[in-house]
Amino acid sequence: MATFMDVHTGMEGITAEALMEAHRADLAIEGEEGVHFKQAWADPDSGTVYCLSEAPTAEAVQRIHERAGHPASEIHPVPLMV
Amino acid sequence: MATFMDVHTGMEGITAEALMEAHRADLAIEGEEGVHFKQAWADPDSGTVYCLSEAPTAEAVQRIHERAGHPASEIHPVPLMV
Repeated sequence: MATFMDVHTGMEGITAEALMEAHRADLAIEGEEGVHFKQAWADPDSGTVYCLSEAPTAEAVQRIHERAGHPASEIHPVPLMV
Repeated sequence: MATFMDVHTGMEGITAEALMEAHRADLAIEGEEGVHFKQAWADPDSGTVYCLSEAPTAEAVQRIHERAGHPASEIHPVPLMV
């Protein structure tokens, strides 16, 4: 397992409810790929969403996000954290 | 106070020690701008670092990062989180 930060763009105007709904959609299926989405942060003005996850691979993260209807623009492993 | 996610690029090869040292440099002066850097995550391969902070403004975040020697490439307010 590794830690990943992924970034979604084009989410201008996202609401707290929409963020929660998107997160719930990920959580509902994440176990099928051994992924866990831990936290997400959104900037509605620029349409940027950051998601922090634990997962076996970046591809597993993307498969869950795609199936939940919101593929990520970038996914970075973040092995270092403070 | 608001929550911000900032992104640094061009940090290819950053080590755990360098990330900790950079974070310590921020923490040493952050109080002068009312900023608090809570967490940071780094991808040494792509040279990307994400920092999560609480701060009065994005400009205050940038002033601390600049004085600590590592200006951010992007700073986004993230008023929504799950």
